Amino acid sequence: MKALVLTGKEQLKLVDKPVPVPAENEVAVRVVATAICRTDAKMWRSGHRDLVMPRVLGHEVCGSIEEAPGKLFAIWPGKACGACEACRSGRENLCPAMQITGFHHDGGFAEFLTVPRSSLLEVPKGLGAAMATLAEPLACAVHAIKLCSIRRADRVLIYGAGTLGLLLALAAVNRGASVTMCEPDATKLDKSAAFRNRYAIDVDNAQTSNGFDIAINATSSADTLASGIGRLTPGGRFCLFSGLGEAPESPATLFNDLHYRELELVGSYGCTKEDMRDALRLLVRYGHDLGFLIERTISLDEVPSVMEEVLAGKGFRQIIIDFSKKS
Amino acid sequence: MKALVLTGKEQLKLVDKPVPVPAENEVAVRVVATAICRTDAKMWRSGHRDLVMPRVLGHEVCGSIEEAPGKLFAIWPGKACGACEACRSGRENLCPAMQITGFHHDGGFAEFLTVPRSSLLEVPKGLGAAMATLAEPLACAVHAIKLCSIRRADRVLIYGAGTLGLLLALAAVNRGASVTMCEPDATKLDKSAAFRNRYAIDVDNAQTSNGFDIAINATSSADTLASGIGRLTPGGRFCLFSGLGEAPESPATLFNDLHYRELELVGSYGCTKEDMRDALRLLVRYGHDLGFLIERTISLDEVPSVMEEVLAGKGFRQIIIDFSKKS
Repeated sequence: MKALVLTGKEQLKLVDKPVPVPAENEVAVRVVATAICRTDAKMWRSGHRDLVMPRVLGHEVCGSIEEAPGKLFAIWPGKACGACEACRSGRENLCPAMQITGFHHDGGFAEFLTVPRSSLLEVPKGLGAAMATLAEPLACAVHAIKLCSIRRADRVLIYGAGTLGLLLALAAVNRGASVTMCEPDATKLDKSAAFRNRYAIDVDNAQTSNGFDIAINATSSADTLASGIGRLTPGGRFCLFSGLGEAPESPATLFNDLHYRELELVGSYGCTKEDMRDALRLLVRYGHDLGFLIERTISLDEVPSVMEEVLAGKGFRQIIIDFSKKS
Repeated sequence: MKALVLTGKEQLKLVDKPVPVPAENEVAVRVVATAICRTDAKMWRSGHRDLVMPRVLGHEVCGSIEEAPGKLFAIWPGKACGACEACRSGRENLCPAMQITGFHHDGGFAEFLTVPRSSLLEVPKGLGAAMATLAEPLACAVHAIKLCSIRRADRVLIYGAGTLGLLLALAAVNRGASVTMCEPDATKLDKSAAFRNRYAIDVDNAQTSNGFDIAINATSSADTLASGIGRLTPGGRFCLFSGLGEAPESPATLFNDLHYRELELVGSYGCTKEDMRDALRLLVRYGHDLGFLIERTISLDEVPSVMEEVLAGKGFRQIIIDFSKKS
């Protein structure tokens, strides 16, 4: 099979490999579509805490299995132990023994991959493979929205209107929240204008509005932390959805602000299988409005040539590897 | 009436003042006992965000009212607007218009004070006035334990085994949690030994134990933050119960630790009326084991002479002003 292997920083090699053989409780998945996540591009440029090289990247995967012809499956990209306290309490994304597809194990930048049978989630009829690759990022958004306990009529502020920011907005809107976004990039705003209008999502780049119940950073800028904390209502929550690229300023006043105003800082990382199920349901409901998130489809051979573009994040929309495309 | 007025930093003056006249919906309370909180001593030394001078301090107050002879009342020291979002959602301690007895309004370092009628909480029969002054600090502890959503079998780490640390431990034990404390002061540990043994509360000053579900700082040391975060299990919570005296170190790794391990930082400040009701119930249940928290009773005249001792926090146990004592 054809596979794209990351052998070192910025070293992506297209190779011919044997089709992987599933271990017990695993299944071989023929990849139909894999989205290139910005995290893939970051790993390509500078590695990642959880990445072991050489590695086939790709964790936003949709594929089929031999025993269920005509069906599509989204893949929960985790492999948890199933026995620890985190797993038993339904927080398997926090399993200390977690192995992530495309990080610890080979992922979807190849014609086949093997995954635990329990990681397969059937894609509802009518949802295409490209759209189904959005299930994983949307599940991460759904996960954060759950951790923030967002309720009807909550006022939610989201920093960053890239793919994840917009999916966070959608998951919040689905809970009945009203959403305001902060995004300095006019091109991104332009591309999402119809979507934002349809769901009454505000933009407030002047940062004049306050009193938010929840703020979420979907950018790695550390500035969003102090800014977001300051714009919360007493008892509000700030969700650390993206990791911070650098140390935020003035932490002293920040911690006492948390204390006196009973604010909460909530970390969010990844998603559970249940979040992916929820995400697939949301894609059925809202998919017709999300087509704009897909930039274009490419063949596997073309991937190395787009990594710089994905890393820059300017296009912001998803580039999908379509395995039916001949190079 | 006799009243002790703070007119400036370290300026406590015993004066004769007219008995205050209650406004509409208020009631005059004859003070029976007031505890001297370390916060009172801090305000005496260096002021406070919410303190307006000149002021009669004292927010841990038990008293009686003319219309209900023979009954004692604890006083919720807040005066909230009752109409804002925080008040309507039962978080009146976060009311932006909050006026605190002993901070914004005259408190219990006097023979009488006036409070909103709705702030009175009847002290259950059998609970003495001195013990009832613990209702306010215990309510603050109960409040934090609620915000941390502590459940049966949770492992709770508490930094500081002063009065508040021990009351936090009690409130956690009451929820079925197992508690470990960190307290370098051997005298404090010695005085609380019988109490800790009775409720199987561990001490781990070597900080060798990990995997806590919740950590709470009942000291203002910024070091507790990084230490406590590091000792939490994935998905765990750190409660900022005490304000931090200075900026904590290495915030950059700290925020990404929150992100990757889905930790939560939760601020806690003050208490609600409902928390005080709960605290009075706990005092009925556990009061017989809390006598050791009371250091001694003094007369109002003696207060200036003990402020330095209270501020030092070494004795750590409560000094109570007993208004039946003649100076």
